[in-house]
Amino acid sequence: MIQLALSAQKTRQFFAAYPENPKAYAEDANDLGLTAFQKTLNTDFTEVHENAHSQRIGAEVSPYMQVGLGVRYAQYSPADLIKYATEVQTEWANVAIDKRAEILTDSLERVSHRFFELAYATMHTTGQGFMMAFQASGPHSNDRALEVISLAWQELTRFETDVDWVKNMGKFDLKLKKTYKPIPRGISLVIGCSTFPTWNTVPGLYASLMAGNPVIIKPHPKSILPIAIVVAEIQNSLKAAGIHPNVVQLGVDTPENQITKILAENPAVKMIDYTGGSVFGDYLETIQNKITFTEKAGVNSAIVDSTTNAEATFGNLAFSACLYSGQMCTAPQNIFIPEGGINTADGNLSFDDCVQHLCTAIKNLVENPKAGPFTLGAIQNDLTVSRVEAAKLKATVALDSIQIVNPEFPDARVKSPVVMVVDATNAELWKHECFGPAVFVIKTKDSAESLKLAAASATELGAITCLCYSTNESFCSTVADTMNNAFTPVSFNFHGAAFVNSHAAFSDFHVTGGNPSGNAGFTNPEYVNRRFVWVGNRYA
Amino acid sequence: MIQLALSAQKTRQFFAAYPENPKAYAEDANDLGLTAFQKTLNTDFTEVHENAHSQRIGAEVSPYMQVGLGVRYAQYSPADLIKYATEVQTEWANVAIDKRAEILTDSLERVSHRFFELAYATMHTTGQGFMMAFQASGPHSNDRALEVISLAWQELTRFETDVDWVKNMGKFDLKLKKTYKPIPRGISLVIGCSTFPTWNTVPGLYASLMAGNPVIIKPHPKSILPIAIVVAEIQNSLKAAGIHPNVVQLGVDTPENQITKILAENPAVKMIDYTGGSVFGDYLETIQNKITFTEKAGVNSAIVDSTTNAEATFGNLAFSACLYSGQMCTAPQNIFIPEGGINTADGNLSFDDCVQHLCTAIKNLVENPKAGPFTLGAIQNDLTVSRVEAAKLKATVALDSIQIVNPEFPDARVKSPVVMVVDATNAELWKHECFGPAVFVIKTKDSAESLKLAAASATELGAITCLCYSTNESFCSTVADTMNNAFTPVSFNFHGAAFVNSHAAFSDFHVTGGNPSGNAGFTNPEYVNRRFVWVGNRYA
Repeated sequence: MIQLALSAQKTRQFFAAYPENPKAYAEDANDLGLTAFQKTLNTDFTEVHENAHSQRIGAEVSPYMQVGLGVRYAQYSPADLIKYATEVQTEWANVAIDKRAEILTDSLERVSHRFFELAYATMHTTGQGFMMAFQASGPHSNDRALEVISLAWQELTRFETDVDWVKNMGKFDLKLKKTYKPIPRGISLVIGCSTFPTWNTVPGLYASLMAGNPVIIKPHPKSILPIAIVVAEIQNSLKAAGIHPNVVQLGVDTPENQITKILAENPAVKMIDYTGGSVFGDYLETIQNKITFTEKAGVNSAIVDSTTNAEATFGNLAFSACLYSGQMCTAPQNIFIPEGGINTADGNLSFDDCVQHLCTAIKNLVENPKAGPFTLGAIQNDLTVSRVEAAKLKATVALDSIQIVNPEFPDARVKSPVVMVVDATNAELWKHECFGPAVFVIKTKDSAESLKLAAASATELGAITCLCYSTNESFCSTVADTMNNAFTPVSFNFHGAAFVNSHAAFSDFHVTGGNPSGNAGFTNPEYVNRRFVWVGNRYA
Repeated sequence: MIQLALSAQKTRQFFAAYPENPKAYAEDANDLGLTAFQKTLNTDFTEVHENAHSQRIGAEVSPYMQVGLGVRYAQYSPADLIKYATEVQTEWANVAIDKRAEILTDSLERVSHRFFELAYATMHTTGQGFMMAFQASGPHSNDRALEVISLAWQELTRFETDVDWVKNMGKFDLKLKKTYKPIPRGISLVIGCSTFPTWNTVPGLYASLMAGNPVIIKPHPKSILPIAIVVAEIQNSLKAAGIHPNVVQLGVDTPENQITKILAENPAVKMIDYTGGSVFGDYLETIQNKITFTEKAGVNSAIVDSTTNAEATFGNLAFSACLYSGQMCTAPQNIFIPEGGINTADGNLSFDDCVQHLCTAIKNLVENPKAGPFTLGAIQNDLTVSRVEAAKLKATVALDSIQIVNPEFPDARVKSPVVMVVDATNAELWKHECFGPAVFVIKTKDSAESLKLAAASATELGAITCLCYSTNESFCSTVADTMNNAFTPVSFNFHGAAFVNSHAAFSDFHVTGGNPSGNAGFTNPEYVNRRFVWVGNRYA
């Protein structure tokens, strides 16, 4: 039932004493969280440990209110961030591995008390709907962090630390005492993204910390508050253990004056974690003498071949496309459907009918006042809107954006998915990332061509997910082999509550690291064990 | 007793049925091996599977006889090597992991029958003495290969392949079936070195093969025969299992017309293993979209602080410096001794006396007709001789090279280690790699300075080993911490049969991957698990 079985088992043993936490879900937790968030607006954020600084900055804007949050964070120069990290390097490296795990697990406990506050902070920086913001920045993010604590603990304690080595040399035994130690690599830079400021940040953050490295977090200048809360709580756990809070620092900047490159290129920075656009990710990967873990852009495909239930299929696809307005790295963009239509339980469904089913499903979902606005959330960045508008000019629009008003936030930047129909041969229209509320339905000769195009796209442009709807077992098997060889996981026949967008901790390797969508996966062994180095000594 | 405890244990379980092999050490094995080697001279080497080719090449020269071996290997273009590797990619990827382990272990059995032949082939390409050639290219190389088979098998079978995933959604359970598979990354290029053509090649070779990748070996043009024998035997194992032998190919070139860069830069090559000089290694590491495992040059230090037995200390150091004439990546080059001398059981030994002890120990060893020529072996490359001659012009020579005649090979290119004395402040004299039979005795203010200089050198230039002689426990502990933080293992107070030069399989991480001497270690988990990618599918 649990993929990282060994790891999860170790976690259970290790954290057996970890108490159930009633605080996170208390009856008044929502009210308290909302109040805490509101109190933070238009104030100086002083919860994070403060070193000497000359000014405060902050440029976060709520996609729901389209006004600035007014939260101001202490600003540090890259040189100061490096200096403070260097100062605490030995102190943190000398903390025993079990103690690190204890401190970091304690921080998750503290973070859990603020799940609702985190949800509001995430809504009003990313534009996520409340439910998603709660889940992604709260329990799911904590899950990912716990997963990485557990895997790192397993890797760090994997080998004996002390052995007596004996080699028979014929007439005598050569005896040596050998010791082995995982040595932290050095300062770790974790670069946050605008859409998932905690979920995408905590794996690298906790992996580097577990391995004994100080971490500098450079959040996206538009999505700082959620991770600032997490940093504050990690620092509280550090302080409670008598350790200097600079072991994790928040290095805030503004869109006009970004410090990411300066930090990344500093020779003291040994590791870089990054989630975001491919151009910047590719640049980071070229910096020599760094270990870089990237999650970049991908173009996710859905291959629709046949289904037992067309309504369920297109309903599921519609939800996956609408969820957070397609601003998830796991959302489907390109839907491949054969020109001859698809087999269903009720016979053939023509290509045009498939498109119609999809459009209707999207329309029904977004126009449902109880579901639409909350599923769509808001658009994080203006550029996302203009990107989709530009794409529309070239393709046949089957469903345009529908004007949806969020009853709670009338000023929210809302845009429902645009459905565009293109021919497979017009690759220039669909074979690129169009991040945001846009799906292309691509007319192919047959499902074999659908698969071929999806696989080529994954290999060339990267892909983090792939959906396949087919009742043909042999075709499913070919899809699995072909897409897996393009290092892309496939989700088959997702209906109901199973959505391709969700990657679960302790179960799904998020990003494989094998195609251009990123060079690293959350969380596989090398994701943690490249953050330290085994060094052995020998004693005669 | 065994470092990679879990791994070794798994190996024992897995290979419990693996039979003892009397063939490797049979009474006539030496004679048969020598005969086989002699028969190969001045012939076409046709043991390796042959694809279409237009000519044969070979430029190996025996450092013992200083005449060409005359062995001619089929020559293939880089494009052909890639083509053949691509053709067998799916076939090999589809071989079950246990079957791969069985085939590769079988190849080690076959290789073991040729340990003596391998020893002669290694002697007459690398210049290693017979004993070292036997050990390094025979059992020790097989040990390293078995270690990597075992670790790779452990990593490849680490996670469940099939799980039922259940998530409670309140009113119902969401149930998914999930599968996980390690997908091979693609074509692997393994670049051999001139001095250890099998020992340094098999870890990457077997790791890539175990992970399901076809391998192209590009041996050093002067050291082909030993690895050609290994390739032939792996191919025999593949053929016996009904698998195409092109799963492992030998891509031979000549010094004048090298194909390494063309292969390395080919987009189909996904992984590169390399042992050799730093300039080429650094270049390989800059090629984008490759996973590169390098072992480059380092400068190894010995810190002499105090000893219970000065004679044993300098005798041990002398042997480590003489063994294969300092042409091991693990050999000590820079010996740091305080200007005030060192404490011994017999009181203070002055700096000059230390130097004298070292010189005497080297002289006694190399002039001993039963030990000297066989310990020194021969110099692989003329450049090694000229490098040492150039260094002599600038330093104070305490012991010049002694003319040693190898009774068996009067034409052997022999050069005993030169001992040079330099002041710590003359960093330009000692702070660089001087590969070959040369040691610098560096006069420092005190042992604290010795350590500081050794650590700085390891951080800046890389280091694969460090020796420390000290009776001061607290100093030893500081040395361990300081050098380990420079990602350098330390060997303490090695006397008698313990030599810093030897790194044992299942016990020593060879190269840490943390300093400029290389970016990867043999054999830690990421050394194998970066050669495949975990991909999971989900089924509703």
